[in-house]
Amino acid sequence: MNHDDWVRQELRELSKSLSFRYTPIKEIENRITKMRRSMEKKEIEGLLVVEKMNFYYLSGTAQDGLLFIPLQGEPLLMIKRELERARVESPLKQIVALKSNKEIPLLIQTHIGKIPKTLGLELDVLPVRDYFKFQELFLGTKLMDVSPILRETRKIKSPIEIDLMKKAGEIGKKVYRQAKKILKKGMTEIEFGGLLEAIAKKYGHEGLLRVRSLNYEAYTWHVLSGVTGGIVSQSDSPMGGLGLSPAFPVGASLKVMRAHEPILVDFGTCYHGYQADETRMFSIGKMKQKFIDAYKACKEIHDTVLEETRSGTDCEAIFLKTLRLAEKLGYKDSYLGPPGLQTRFIAHGIGLELNELPFIAQGQSYPLEQGMTFAVEPKIVFPGQGSVGLENTVVVTKKGYEILTPVEQEIFQV
Amino acid sequence: MNHDDWVRQELRELSKSLSFRYTPIKEIENRITKMRRSMEKKEIEGLLVVEKMNFYYLSGTAQDGLLFIPLQGEPLLMIKRELERARVESPLKQIVALKSNKEIPLLIQTHIGKIPKTLGLELDVLPVRDYFKFQELFLGTKLMDVSPILRETRKIKSPIEIDLMKKAGEIGKKVYRQAKKILKKGMTEIEFGGLLEAIAKKYGHEGLLRVRSLNYEAYTWHVLSGVTGGIVSQSDSPMGGLGLSPAFPVGASLKVMRAHEPILVDFGTCYHGYQADETRMFSIGKMKQKFIDAYKACKEIHDTVLEETRSGTDCEAIFLKTLRLAEKLGYKDSYLGPPGLQTRFIAHGIGLELNELPFIAQGQSYPLEQGMTFAVEPKIVFPGQGSVGLENTVVVTKKGYEILTPVEQEIFQV
Repeated sequence: MNHDDWVRQELRELSKSLSFRYTPIKEIENRITKMRRSMEKKEIEGLLVVEKMNFYYLSGTAQDGLLFIPLQGEPLLMIKRELERARVESPLKQIVALKSNKEIPLLIQTHIGKIPKTLGLELDVLPVRDYFKFQELFLGTKLMDVSPILRETRKIKSPIEIDLMKKAGEIGKKVYRQAKKILKKGMTEIEFGGLLEAIAKKYGHEGLLRVRSLNYEAYTWHVLSGVTGGIVSQSDSPMGGLGLSPAFPVGASLKVMRAHEPILVDFGTCYHGYQADETRMFSIGKMKQKFIDAYKACKEIHDTVLEETRSGTDCEAIFLKTLRLAEKLGYKDSYLGPPGLQTRFIAHGIGLELNELPFIAQGQSYPLEQGMTFAVEPKIVFPGQGSVGLENTVVVTKKGYEILTPVEQEIFQV
Repeated sequence: MNHDDWVRQELRELSKSLSFRYTPIKEIENRITKMRRSMEKKEIEGLLVVEKMNFYYLSGTAQDGLLFIPLQGEPLLMIKRELERARVESPLKQIVALKSNKEIPLLIQTHIGKIPKTLGLELDVLPVRDYFKFQELFLGTKLMDVSPILRETRKIKSPIEIDLMKKAGEIGKKVYRQAKKILKKGMTEIEFGGLLEAIAKKYGHEGLLRVRSLNYEAYTWHVLSGVTGGIVSQSDSPMGGLGLSPAFPVGASLKVMRAHEPILVDFGTCYHGYQADETRMFSIGKMKQKFIDAYKACKEIHDTVLEETRSGTDCEAIFLKTLRLAEKLGYKDSYLGPPGLQTRFIAHGIGLELNELPFIAQGQSYPLEQGMTFAVEPKIVFPGQGSVGLENTVVVTKKGYEILTPVEQEIFQV
C-alpha cells in the first residue's frame, strides 16, 4: 500500500485505539483568538511559529513545519515531511506541503494576498542563523519578538489542558505507589530512577520534560540519597544531585542508597505534552529525626503556599511569606539551598514546558489567576548530609486550588 | 559543613568512586589548539562558548557558564552557579564566578587586557535574544559565526573520546543481550522500550541523546512493531513510528507487539556525553520471510558500507553505491523509506551529538578521515506492514574501521 493512502485511511483509527487525543478546532480557535488580541495591540500583522511546543499548542500537531497566523483569516500550516499525518492530527483547514523555507514568503503571499509589514518570531529560542535567513526571505518586513505574547497566552490553561495534566498526575500516582514496592537496600539511585521511569512509560509517560531554554535540558529522574541530596548543581534549583558524569552532572547517580538516608524522588510525568511535577521522600528504615523534622517544615511551607493560592493573590508576596516562615521554623540557612546558593523561587509554572508563567518568586509581583498551573516545591538542603522536600502540581481555581498530583503526602518508608 | 568546603574536600573522591572520568588538561589543550588554528585563519580574536556540549568539549565541565578562548593565552571559564564543582571538573587554570552576563566584557578586559575586535559565537543554536544582548555588551566588536569551526574540530575523535564511545557501546551490548529475556508476547512497545532504558541506566547510560537543533529532540527508545514500523514521522529518518501522542509522535507506542511481526529496536546509549547508536531486529516466533529477506539486504548494504570505510573514501560515493545495491537487490522503492519520503543518507556522524559530521549522504562529497565516528543504518520500510534495519556505530581507522557496538548481528527471535 502507498504510505500516504495508509495514513489517510488507517492512522486516525489506530491512534485513537491507542489513546491519542486530538485538539478540537474550537480549542485551537480560542488560543488563536487570544493570541490575535495581543498581536493587534503590538501591531504584529502575522506570526510565524517555529518552536515545537508553540507549534503544537496552536496547531494540534508536532510534525515538522511552520505555522503562519495572520491577524485575520485562516492560519496556514506548512509541513515539511509528514503532510498526511499533520492533516490527521491538526484540525486547521489550510495545511500545505513545504519543500524548503525559501517557499514561505510565496506561500504566505498566495494565502493572504500580501507579505505582512510586521512579522512575529519566537526570538527567545530561535537560533540566530535562522533569524538571518528570515531577514533575507522577508526583506522590508519588520521582524518582532512574539515570545512574551506566546508566554502570556499559554499561562492560563483551558479545561482541556488541565485534564491532560490530571492524566499526567494519575500516571505519577501509579509510579509513586509502586515505588515503595521496588525500593530495596543496595540499589543505586539510577537503578531505582530507571525503574520508576519504566513504570511511568508503561502507562503512557512521554519521557521528555520539555524546558524552554538552550542549555537547560529535559530529564525526568531525580533520585538523591543522603550526601548526593546536598549537592547543588548547574540548574537554578535548591539541589541537583551528583548525576552520572561531568557531561551529565545532575539527577540520579551510581551511588548505592543506604538505610536511614533521606531519599528524595523528584519525578515529572508527561501526557500529550502536558507535565505534572512532584516530589516525595522515601527511606529504607526510618530516616534520621533531623530530616523528618525538616520534612515537616517543608509540609508546613507547602500548605501555607496552598492556603494563599486563589485568584488575585500576589506571587511575590507568597514567596516572601514562605521566607519568613522558613526562618521562624529554624531553616533560614537551609531553605531552598545552602547559604550563598539559595534559589529565590518556591513554585514554577508548568504545562507544555517546565518553566512557564507564573513564578512564585522574588521579583515576580503579579496576581495569580484562575487556570494558572504551577508546581510548588519547598526544599531544605544540608550540605554533606542530604535534603528533603515535597512538591505538588496545582491549578488555581476562583476561590482556591486543586491538586493535580494526588499522591499521599507522607514519607514512604520501606 | 559549608557547601563549598564539602565540594572542595569530598566531591572529587565521591565522583571518582562512582566512575566519573575527568578530561585531562592535555586533551583540552589539543582541542583548543585545533580550534585556534581555524580561528586564526578566519581572523577571530576570541571565542565565547555558550552551548553546553561545545562548552563541555572545550572545558571538561557542563556546569552553567560561558567559556572565553582568546587567540593567545589562557582560556577563561566563567561559572554562574556551581563554581567549586566546575573547579573540580575542569582542568583549566582560570575559573571565575559570573553573577550576570553583564560582567563578561569586564572579565575579558581584565583577563587579556582588551576587548577583542572580532568575537566568535555559536550562531547555529544561540537564540536571537541572547545575540542582541551580546551585541549591546560588545559594542564595536564584530560578532562572527564560529559553529562551522566547532563542528569541524569535533568531527575527528581523539582516543579518549573513542574510548568513551566504546563504553557506551558496551552498555548497549548488555541491553540487547538482556532484551531477548525481557521481550514477551502481549507487551506494548513502550513497556519493552522503558525496560530496555532502565537496564541501560543501571549500567550508567545517561538517558539523553543530544541533538544539535532547536526542534529535533533527544530520546532513546525506538521500538517499532509491524504496522508502526511503516510510519514515517517528523524526523529525517526512514521511519519514526507512532509515538505516544500528537505531542510526541515518534518512537515506541502503546501498541501491543504481536507474534511474527518484525520488531525494530533502535536504541542509543550515552556515557560521559558520548553516544553509541545501534539497531537490531527482534521477533516473537519467526517473522515473515519477506522481512527476513529484507533484513538480509540491509545486512548486505551495511557490510558494503563498511568494506568502503577507510581514510580517504568519498562519503557521497559510498551513499550512491548503496542506492545502486538496494536497487539491484529489489528494494528501490522501500530502501530508506517509502517512495516520496525516502531519506538521502545512510550514515550520520555521532559523538556528543547525534548529528555530527560526517554524513554519508547525497551531496556530502568529502573524504572519510581517521578518527571520524558514524552510525551506519540501512533500513527498509513497507507502509502498513513494518520495517527492518541494522545499525552500528563505527570509528574510521587508517586502513578500515572498528565497530563500537559489538552485539551479534542476527535477528533476535524469542
